[in-house]
Amino acid sequence: MYVVILAGGSGTRFWPVSRIARPKQLISVVDGPTMLQRTVERVVPLKPKRILVITNRLQADETECQLAGYRRQVPIDIIAEPVGRNTAPAIGLAAALIAARDPQAVMAVLPADHFIRDEAGLRDCLQTAAQAARNGYLVTLGIVPTRPETGYGYIEADMALRGSGPFPVLRFVEKPPLEQAVRYLESHTFLWNSGIFVWRADVILEELASHMPELAAQLETLQFGGDVWDVADLEPQIAAVYARVASESIDYGVMEHSQRVQLVPADIGWSDVGSWSALPDLLEADQNGNVTTNSAAHIAVESSGCIVSGHGGLVATIGVNDLVVVSAGDALLVCPKERAQDVRAVVEALKLQGLDRYL
Amino acid sequence: MYVVILAGGSGTRFWPVSRIARPKQLISVVDGPTMLQRTVERVVPLKPKRILVITNRLQADETECQLAGYRRQVPIDIIAEPVGRNTAPAIGLAAALIAARDPQAVMAVLPADHFIRDEAGLRDCLQTAAQAARNGYLVTLGIVPTRPETGYGYIEADMALRGSGPFPVLRFVEKPPLEQAVRYLESHTFLWNSGIFVWRADVILEELASHMPELAAQLETLQFGGDVWDVADLEPQIAAVYARVASESIDYGVMEHSQRVQLVPADIGWSDVGSWSALPDLLEADQNGNVTTNSAAHIAVESSGCIVSGHGGLVATIGVNDLVVVSAGDALLVCPKERAQDVRAVVEALKLQGLDRYL
Repeated sequence: MYVVILAGGSGTRFWPVSRIARPKQLISVVDGPTMLQRTVERVVPLKPKRILVITNRLQADETECQLAGYRRQVPIDIIAEPVGRNTAPAIGLAAALIAARDPQAVMAVLPADHFIRDEAGLRDCLQTAAQAARNGYLVTLGIVPTRPETGYGYIEADMALRGSGPFPVLRFVEKPPLEQAVRYLESHTFLWNSGIFVWRADVILEELASHMPELAAQLETLQFGGDVWDVADLEPQIAAVYARVASESIDYGVMEHSQRVQLVPADIGWSDVGSWSALPDLLEADQNGNVTTNSAAHIAVESSGCIVSGHGGLVATIGVNDLVVVSAGDALLVCPKERAQDVRAVVEALKLQGLDRYL
Repeated sequence: MYVVILAGGSGTRFWPVSRIARPKQLISVVDGPTMLQRTVERVVPLKPKRILVITNRLQADETECQLAGYRRQVPIDIIAEPVGRNTAPAIGLAAALIAARDPQAVMAVLPADHFIRDEAGLRDCLQTAAQAARNGYLVTLGIVPTRPETGYGYIEADMALRGSGPFPVLRFVEKPPLEQAVRYLESHTFLWNSGIFVWRADVILEELASHMPELAAQLETLQFGGDVWDVADLEPQIAAVYARVASESIDYGVMEHSQRVQLVPADIGWSDVGSWSALPDLLEADQNGNVTTNSAAHIAVESSGCIVSGHGGLVATIGVNDLVVVSAGDALLVCPKERAQDVRAVVEALKLQGLDRYL
């Protein structure tokens, strides 16, 4: 199996720890290794033939640096997109690279910025998915919902057959209103779209040719030399392809149209870690419900429900509740938990005030 | 005139900016120069013959460092006490040093950790006081109260004579209950005890001999060599004196008993800067009542009444009110304004948990 890690994301929801040059996948959200490093560590036990990491030029050096230590365990290729074009071109490029050497190889596609508590469970799901993938299916991991979440897309599967799947996929559904999300949760046949996919390189390329012919045509222009993994050599060609392809997700571009999609349900403690307020689900709290990451210590005097990230130092709180407190070197954020999404307002203010060095 | 600056204080009310080795007088509370540096800058225009700074051994190096730049403008002697013994021994030692060279010299005694908005006003008061001091009075600056403060001592003066003083002092009063403080405020004859004094060196030594004979006897043992200002040479003698004198304030030891005390009223925007919550009185607030010190910027999204100290970096707050947010390198404090006094609870917790490196 090959592993493709999509690590080209940007975003500021974890400001001030995440910055333009260091988005979520390149930071340590839940202590220790970064999100990207954790993604690699999760799949190393599967002994993948290679790991292809798709990042972008701004983050390529930091990505290289963070993954250097894993190269003794597994061959890693880092491919820097000249510009972000959503997931379909990135996945198509990876599939073309893999197919050039090993057309029928199974590839697992994983976002680099998700948290997964049950890592062995993930690997079991990937192996179940790989069996179906070998038979020509596009397999997606569907996360077993734990709440009526209105912020995620859902996938309806025909789960009449019992077992661990895979199950045929009936349809993809956009982010639902709450009432509908509650029904989905109760139905047990709607699962969260995780963005984790397993398929054969030749199969996804065929599907791209059917559903995204313009992207497929561009990918066919790529000329691979003697060593297909010498990706630095390919960069001018990749730049030419990216100049001509549209931005599109693999979900809209292929998954929602393909007739050969199957789903493996995954009950693996998954979270897309959407903002600081997601941390209480991922970290163990103290007796007052405070969670701490990246801190030497949290001295909590009459404080409860706080989310604290201390940049390796100490954070002291007195008489505060349900507060997010994040220190990151030259910048510091304090807001109530329920305002964690509004970090974007700070980022906008920084732009308006020309304080770009904090972005 | 000589100036004696009492800079040996310790304390943790400004943790995490103030630490054991860097108490309030050695930190920048209201941006820019430290409290000690501001104290020196205030008196430089008076062209004092010398400034004697009494500090303690733990802080002597940092004191030296912070004052190095002022030595081109005025001779500065830094005297490190081996141990703190409150104000009477420190003032007695300074008086003995000055009297050895210039017995009738007038000396002004200033705490190093107070804020004074009207610095020219302070200098006017000191010069008014110096005239009375030359005539043999112990002159104290009485701060014109602006609120019925229960945390300060008061001085009652006979202010029947109009003018800028000096006025005869009737009595010293301990920290009063609120009802009494309200009456004091309305009376216009009770002023706050500022700890700022002006007198002749020989006069205060006489008064020490009358009211604190044991301290006076110890000070008389000091043998001054050729250069009385070579204070490093004196250190073993000072250590011997301090080993034998009791801890006492000049207020209790002398001022409350002396018959020659006069008061100069001072309406000079004075504050003893007792805790982080004092800052709104000292700093200009933004339109939402937020005050900022030591910060590159404060991005305040729907935030009001906050006190922010950002260690040279940026602080962003979203949807919080009346909060103290203080970053200081490896430590960070968040608490409501009304809990600012409870910083001591954090300091106690740090001691209990062996986190001494943050003290």
